[in-house]
Amino acid sequence: MSKRNIYLKTIPVAEALERARAALDREALVGSETVPAHLAAGRVTAAPVHARLSSPAFHSAAMDGIAVKAEATFTAREGHPLRLEPGRDFFPVNTGQPLPGGTDAVIKIEDVVQDPGGALQIEAPAFPWMHVRRIGQDIVATELMLPQNHPLSAYDVGALLSAGIWELEVWQPLRICFIPTGDEVLDFATRPQPAPGQVVESNSQVLAALAKNWGARMRWTAPVPDDPERIRRAVEEALASEAQVVVVGAGSSAGTRDFTSRIFAELGEVLAHGLAVSPGKPTLIGTAAGKLLVGAPGYPGSAIVCFEEVLAPLVAWLGRAPAPSRERIEVRITRKTPSRLGAEEMLRLAVGKIGEEAMAVPLGRGPGMITNLTRAQALVRVPAGSEGLEQDERVSAELLVPAPLLESVLVHVGSHDNTLDLLSNELMGRGEPLRLVSSNVGSLGGLTALRAGSAMFAGVHLFDPQSGDFNFPFLEKYLPGLEVVVVNLAIRHQGLIVPAGNPKNIRDIHDLAREDVGFINRQRGAGTRILLDYHLKQAGIAPARVRGYEREEYTHMAVAVNVLTGSADAALGIRSAAKALGLDFVPLARERYDLVIPARFTEDHKILTLIELLQSEPLIKQIDALGGYETPLTGRIMHPGMGLEG
Amino acid sequence: MSKRNIYLKTIPVAEALERARAALDREALVGSETVPAHLAAGRVTAAPVHARLSSPAFHSAAMDGIAVKAEATFTAREGHPLRLEPGRDFFPVNTGQPLPGGTDAVIKIEDVVQDPGGALQIEAPAFPWMHVRRIGQDIVATELMLPQNHPLSAYDVGALLSAGIWELEVWQPLRICFIPTGDEVLDFATRPQPAPGQVVESNSQVLAALAKNWGARMRWTAPVPDDPERIRRAVEEALASEAQVVVVGAGSSAGTRDFTSRIFAELGEVLAHGLAVSPGKPTLIGTAAGKLLVGAPGYPGSAIVCFEEVLAPLVAWLGRAPAPSRERIEVRITRKTPSRLGAEEMLRLAVGKIGEEAMAVPLGRGPGMITNLTRAQALVRVPAGSEGLEQDERVSAELLVPAPLLESVLVHVGSHDNTLDLLSNELMGRGEPLRLVSSNVGSLGGLTALRAGSAMFAGVHLFDPQSGDFNFPFLEKYLPGLEVVVVNLAIRHQGLIVPAGNPKNIRDIHDLAREDVGFINRQRGAGTRILLDYHLKQAGIAPARVRGYEREEYTHMAVAVNVLTGSADAALGIRSAAKALGLDFVPLARERYDLVIPARFTEDHKILTLIELLQSEPLIKQIDALGGYETPLTGRIMHPGMGLEG
Repeated sequence: MSKRNIYLKTIPVAEALERARAALDREALVGSETVPAHLAAGRVTAAPVHARLSSPAFHSAAMDGIAVKAEATFTAREGHPLRLEPGRDFFPVNTGQPLPGGTDAVIKIEDVVQDPGGALQIEAPAFPWMHVRRIGQDIVATELMLPQNHPLSAYDVGALLSAGIWELEVWQPLRICFIPTGDEVLDFATRPQPAPGQVVESNSQVLAALAKNWGARMRWTAPVPDDPERIRRAVEEALASEAQVVVVGAGSSAGTRDFTSRIFAELGEVLAHGLAVSPGKPTLIGTAAGKLLVGAPGYPGSAIVCFEEVLAPLVAWLGRAPAPSRERIEVRITRKTPSRLGAEEMLRLAVGKIGEEAMAVPLGRGPGMITNLTRAQALVRVPAGSEGLEQDERVSAELLVPAPLLESVLVHVGSHDNTLDLLSNELMGRGEPLRLVSSNVGSLGGLTALRAGSAMFAGVHLFDPQSGDFNFPFLEKYLPGLEVVVVNLAIRHQGLIVPAGNPKNIRDIHDLAREDVGFINRQRGAGTRILLDYHLKQAGIAPARVRGYEREEYTHMAVAVNVLTGSADAALGIRSAAKALGLDFVPLARERYDLVIPARFTEDHKILTLIELLQSEPLIKQIDALGGYETPLTGRIMHPGMGLEG
Repeated sequence: MSKRNIYLKTIPVAEALERARAALDREALVGSETVPAHLAAGRVTAAPVHARLSSPAFHSAAMDGIAVKAEATFTAREGHPLRLEPGRDFFPVNTGQPLPGGTDAVIKIEDVVQDPGGALQIEAPAFPWMHVRRIGQDIVATELMLPQNHPLSAYDVGALLSAGIWELEVWQPLRICFIPTGDEVLDFATRPQPAPGQVVESNSQVLAALAKNWGARMRWTAPVPDDPERIRRAVEEALASEAQVVVVGAGSSAGTRDFTSRIFAELGEVLAHGLAVSPGKPTLIGTAAGKLLVGAPGYPGSAIVCFEEVLAPLVAWLGRAPAPSRERIEVRITRKTPSRLGAEEMLRLAVGKIGEEAMAVPLGRGPGMITNLTRAQALVRVPAGSEGLEQDERVSAELLVPAPLLESVLVHVGSHDNTLDLLSNELMGRGEPLRLVSSNVGSLGGLTALRAGSAMFAGVHLFDPQSGDFNFPFLEKYLPGLEVVVVNLAIRHQGLIVPAGNPKNIRDIHDLAREDVGFINRQRGAGTRILLDYHLKQAGIAPARVRGYEREEYTHMAVAVNVLTGSADAALGIRSAAKALGLDFVPLARERYDLVIPARFTEDHKILTLIELLQSEPLIKQIDALGGYETPLTGRIMHPGMGLEG
């Protein structure tokens, strides 16, 4: 085998950041520039700002009314009105106007009585400076308005212009150059069609979007192949550009094609290789030519940790801005989640409110899983010394979305069905959009979640051979004592998903025992697996005789994709999955897919919206259009013994 | 007097928003557009997005190592290694590479032992699909990736590109046109020098900066004079442009020059005039040509409430985005703050952490006060039915800055001094910047704040005629039993601030009793006022003989500005204030300005930094350069009886 790298000892992120700050001279690296004040929001002052004009620059009326000399009104009182002549005793003023010479108070228009002929009467005296905004009351010329290193807000822009400051000195924006690497990596800009083994480069654009939020600017190169000479040249070019930060995408790990650490060492100095954080471990930090070098892992989940935990604080520090931070909330963890000792784990969570409590479903942790990133509302850091999170443990989590958005999250745990995608999209089309966060753990997993109180509803399709009924026998068994309402989503067709044209001529369940047929199964607890086991038993086929019985996937679409790509010859699943991928379908059974809702949630506005939607004509038409569903019961309340007939 | 408008009945903000949403047809007003996926972060999907590619699109190695057929490894166990031949039994793979045909598992490189000659040994079997990322495990082609109305994050951009989505349908950005109005309003772009009665227009740029944060785009016109015809023409032009929202700045109030409501009524319909919120009451909402019309108040504080409470939620609603929201924290109110019944009051707060507690100093409430906006870290809503906030009341406040920033706030309450500006700027230049939030309420006010526990330190300069000492006699009286440390900031010169050239020939305290001399005083409790009273008493002058004794300002600079603009002939204040504004100065006394720090805070890292800074040469040089200060004691711990000698 060819030469491999070896990680230096992994170090905590904080220590890596400390090394980088110690190695960089930010005074030399990031200078200041002058910008117009009206465009300065989001920038950081590089020098103190002193007011040029006072505000107000003159004594001005704070109310609409009349300007008077207070002294001349002292005799007015209730029942003893004082008569004021226009142009002598009073002058009309609107808010903001300067006080006419000789006046020092304003009486509100509501407090004067108009005489015929233009004179006025008042029944209370004014005191000096009443309803007057005095010179410099707000800002005094020459005074400090903003100190150095102050992050400028929209409000500050108003203050600067009011004080006559038209331009000011701010720190230069940080400039980042991102160099994606890898033979297998395709440039997204070419709109490529990846062949097997190839992937579309996207980390550059994730960083570009993040950098924009940090107030930094990013440019990127086309992907550079795994050739040390070419990567080194690209890094050298970036170092020669105006960028203060150079990030090399992928190649920072310990594989045979990971050249980045060697290149960094040749061009400058490696400060850290391997961080005690998961994902994100294969992060590399170095310096060269006084600039910051970062090697970012290739997996999206790892890259994001590198971007947010390493790059973001260093970019902020270089630009004298506060490091980006997230709001924290307390969440209840709904599933025991072990964590490896020795590295801080960044665990992403799907979070929805159930009553007052934020319930957090830990998402999977494959660093290559992009949907873990897009589906998460929060993340929790499991410390390096912790063995993980317990079920029902309350932890402080960092929000990835605005807190009010959690109020609109509907947490579903249970079986996967393609109609849930329709539901999800339709719920987001409501006046008050609802976000369906779905954890696909199978029907029994859904019932377990209801029992634990960690889901608002569960989608289940569990056939009970003894009674011939669906779902209710399982509710009695798994949710004794829990009052629930059961609403039908659809009757759906389950069958064998086979390649288009059905090349192996699979006709029924017996064909799964054939030597030349590879199967792909669903996970334990899935209603579809229970259905398979029932049909295998009926047919007298032992599971061990089904080749691939032990291979598990978590959704209908996932098993269908295995059939599509030839990694399996058959799978049990729903017709709509076969149809979506252009596969053939051999019907096996019809089953009832219901939504089980604890009765205590049926008054919740989100659940009411859900039920209302299930009863709406447009949704039913969309379900029918999917194929493989029947909708006579959709949106109806189910009762024991109804079977498929309603 | 000319014709005035009358407010329609004021209504709560929520009701005004409801009226606007009911009157607008957002389907007609805001359409969709196609944007490249890599530029879509921050936008909102206008249609569901389905995956085009699966991810992974092939079975791929999840680890660096060797790909094997699991079945062929079942005999390997500890002590009984299995020998694997390259190219037959195993194939080296790096993370992300496709599995070679016939293999279905990956063994980590750490778990193999190299034989000489290229063969390997393993001591544990692989199980099928071990360390393999299976096809579609993350994203399955054709599946829903994102529903409609989904706000796109940086993560989503990565997911879109990975799934082969190069462009997508998003809602158009909202376009706002802002029309400033007012005869007295000057276009900031001309860099004007305002004459008395004129102000620089700045609200347009505050809104532009806010709108950018909302993802909206704003253009603005030059200020339009108070001429109904010209304003109407400007509104008509804006309505004919692509803007969906037209905002008229100022002119929405009830003054004689407030034409906006009439113009809105002529062009369309007024939906609300006058909101039950303070500041922000003179807000006007209407529609014309299917577009949203808003009349924004002219005062900066009122305009911002209109922008953030009215425009922001409507712009978000039109663009199908979540309304901007703020993090909430519990704060303790440090000063009783009455509020008027009948309107919700938006009260801005300076907030700093003292220990674990966030202490909130209510800032003044003049809607014209720009510094109330720039100095605030939070705001609290006092409900319409509340009479205000009690001292020490704990309330939920909305943060205007990131929460971690509160940890860096040093809360000072006490006397104002120009050296505090220097301190403030220098503290922001530290490695970990500290933000000085200063409430200028005079020396006695500072001691009161220390007693209430609502400040970390107080700047005081209180002369005790009986002992001839500074500050300590007052500490015994006002802070009995509180252990404090007293550190000198500077010895400073107090004297009479008079116009340049001293036209009225003011020589000493006796001149303040002259008929032709107008004085401007400091507020009760200010050390400077106590000093004045002492010198008046020494000179046998009754306060009533000083013309202007009752006119109060809160800072040295504010009294100096009164002298500068001729609204007073003399003030008692510090030399640096006179110097800053080019005024003359008649010395009267030297005094010791000390910082009083409760002993329990002296271990706080912020206080330690402050004391360290006071002892630093560069700061002392800057204080000396101000003029009117002596620094032999600066940074030294003071003890009773030291007077000015140390």
